[in-house]
Amino acid sequence: MITLPQECRLTEDLPLDCGRSLKDVVIRYETVGELNADASNAVLITHALTGDAHVCGKHDVSDRKSGWWDEMVGPGKYIDTNRYFVICSNVLGGCSGSTGPQSIDPDTGKPYHLDFPVITVRDMVRAQKRLVDMLGIRQLLAVVGGSMGGMQVLQWAVDYPDAMRAIVPIATAASYSPQNIAFDWVARDAIRSDANWKNGDYPPDDPPGRGLAAARMLAHITYLSEESLGRKFGRNLQDKSEYDFDFAHDFAVESYLEHQGKRFVERFDANAYLYITRATDYFDLTAETDGDLAKAFANVSAKFLIVSFSSDWLFPTRQSRLMVEALLRDRKEVSFCEIQSGYGHDAFLLEVDRLGRMVRDFLRQVEVK
Amino acid sequence: MITLPQECRLTEDLPLDCGRSLKDVVIRYETVGELNADASNAVLITHALTGDAHVCGKHDVSDRKSGWWDEMVGPGKYIDTNRYFVICSNVLGGCSGSTGPQSIDPDTGKPYHLDFPVITVRDMVRAQKRLVDMLGIRQLLAVVGGSMGGMQVLQWAVDYPDAMRAIVPIATAASYSPQNIAFDWVARDAIRSDANWKNGDYPPDDPPGRGLAAARMLAHITYLSEESLGRKFGRNLQDKSEYDFDFAHDFAVESYLEHQGKRFVERFDANAYLYITRATDYFDLTAETDGDLAKAFANVSAKFLIVSFSSDWLFPTRQSRLMVEALLRDRKEVSFCEIQSGYGHDAFLLEVDRLGRMVRDFLRQVEVK
Repeated sequence: MITLPQECRLTEDLPLDCGRSLKDVVIRYETVGELNADASNAVLITHALTGDAHVCGKHDVSDRKSGWWDEMVGPGKYIDTNRYFVICSNVLGGCSGSTGPQSIDPDTGKPYHLDFPVITVRDMVRAQKRLVDMLGIRQLLAVVGGSMGGMQVLQWAVDYPDAMRAIVPIATAASYSPQNIAFDWVARDAIRSDANWKNGDYPPDDPPGRGLAAARMLAHITYLSEESLGRKFGRNLQDKSEYDFDFAHDFAVESYLEHQGKRFVERFDANAYLYITRATDYFDLTAETDGDLAKAFANVSAKFLIVSFSSDWLFPTRQSRLMVEALLRDRKEVSFCEIQSGYGHDAFLLEVDRLGRMVRDFLRQVEVK
Repeated sequence: MITLPQECRLTEDLPLDCGRSLKDVVIRYETVGELNADASNAVLITHALTGDAHVCGKHDVSDRKSGWWDEMVGPGKYIDTNRYFVICSNVLGGCSGSTGPQSIDPDTGKPYHLDFPVITVRDMVRAQKRLVDMLGIRQLLAVVGGSMGGMQVLQWAVDYPDAMRAIVPIATAASYSPQNIAFDWVARDAIRSDANWKNGDYPPDDPPGRGLAAARMLAHITYLSEESLGRKFGRNLQDKSEYDFDFAHDFAVESYLEHQGKRFVERFDANAYLYITRATDYFDLTAETDGDLAKAFANVSAKFLIVSFSSDWLFPTRQSRLMVEALLRDRKEVSFCEIQSGYGHDAFLLEVDRLGRMVRDFLRQVEVK
């Protein structure tokens, strides 16, 4: 299936949580399937930290890889594009087509870099809402996403309670934990310590690659469980049978991390990484309700399907349960499942069948009611 | 109580696991209490990654802080120096008085830096054994240590089965996990990426401080539990009531990490950090028994007291249980306790009373039998 990226230029300035606003915002997005006559079959999919608008299919038959959730989304798949009109957009602040720190500042004619305003998950969602409005959709059938995508899903339900019938927050939490903030701090420190970073003013062909790779390596550890690292690598050595007694990579897990770091630098921008991780740090649905999550959810009207994974220690099940409890206190409709999986946080991309069946059945129920 | 550092120069070259050997090795150590007439009351305490020989007391009455385990060790304390002759030495490869990468290579008259051989936990223990021999002690009453100290304890029991009557490995494991190796890889990458590192040849007054601080910040996250981070910091802001919308520290946890990183650079050497973490990566009691831990423990004769902490995710209880099961298969004497604690890995230094009572009672039992 061939999918094509599209662009939407917001006609009005976008106000931001920091108090500033952005002009000429461009949102890169893709759609799959057809919007039905009463525009009631639209499903918005929100992507995780380093995802993009290319959720499924290929841009060209010669593409080696399909979109990031191709096993989940497409004709006849769990989120069936024969049935639903699927929309996925690159987040504000990103580096995959939507306005972000590497975009040209219309006021100066130069890239924003660190003059780009620090954005929040709510700002990302505010931009998405504009896109959905411009597509002529008054109410989405559902908003679905995992990890940082799940944060956007939750923000949608709280900020635009009538804008969707259902939401599916996967492997996420109602507020970003201090442990998560701590990991982000160290990751951003790696980028900012790289001499190539130059306070954000690096040329595109000479980015702070080593710092960005380090940030990615660290993040990768948090995406895997101890169990999955044990199963995948154990203490296996990389192409050798004895320790080299040096500081190069001896272990397969070291070699894997190095590879992941290098590959990431080819596809992602360091400044965007700073901005997007900062947005997640600031994510806290209860910021305005003094930590009271039931109060934060008081006005939501969407039906919830919340999914967590047993070995996910970045967004542990405990945090999903807090949401379930708050919603039940509010007498909201919520389904919850913890999927038993050894894959850690990555499970939300890997346990496609078990997750997919649940999401498919949930969407069907929402449709008929 | 005043304690004084002492030095022991090994009279013979020290052979190492990597195949090389070290000349003129110096081991910095401290002793507290008195060795009894039949030299049967000696307790060796082994320190963790960034510890040193200064286990308790003060070097000078004006010292602000006491040794790193002062609440545990001293006259009338849990490891009672009125009763026991306590020895603690700085590990080989360290930077607190024992021979390490910043020491002068007797062959060149210059500091070793990266010419220092990559050492192992077994090498550290081999050096300690020489020290204990030189102190005239044929059999220790016990070897006690937590974290990397626990690895040394285990290595003692396997390599020198008749050299002690009991061992107490705390918050540790029989082999370093791939997750631990992965974190070390990223930490060392931070040091090696620092332009000041200069492949190890930095001058003492211009060390790769930023990289070392990053390594320490990362390690700190792994020492705390999600719960303790939540209790200690939550999402509290540092000296402000609203987000600054920038990349400096907004959150208390960020400010804490930054402080810990900076303080660490004042007291620890970057090359030593590389060498000591590499030694832990290589730690695997089952390396020569094809992963069979019962086989690795087959010849131990010491009584074991193994202690883990419920919220320690760096060395989870599961890993202690593997040791207990292997020892029971071997019909060895082993006591085991998981202490319920929210402090994460740091609990081995913080849960002094609960841990201390257990260690005290265990040592008494070993004495009388």
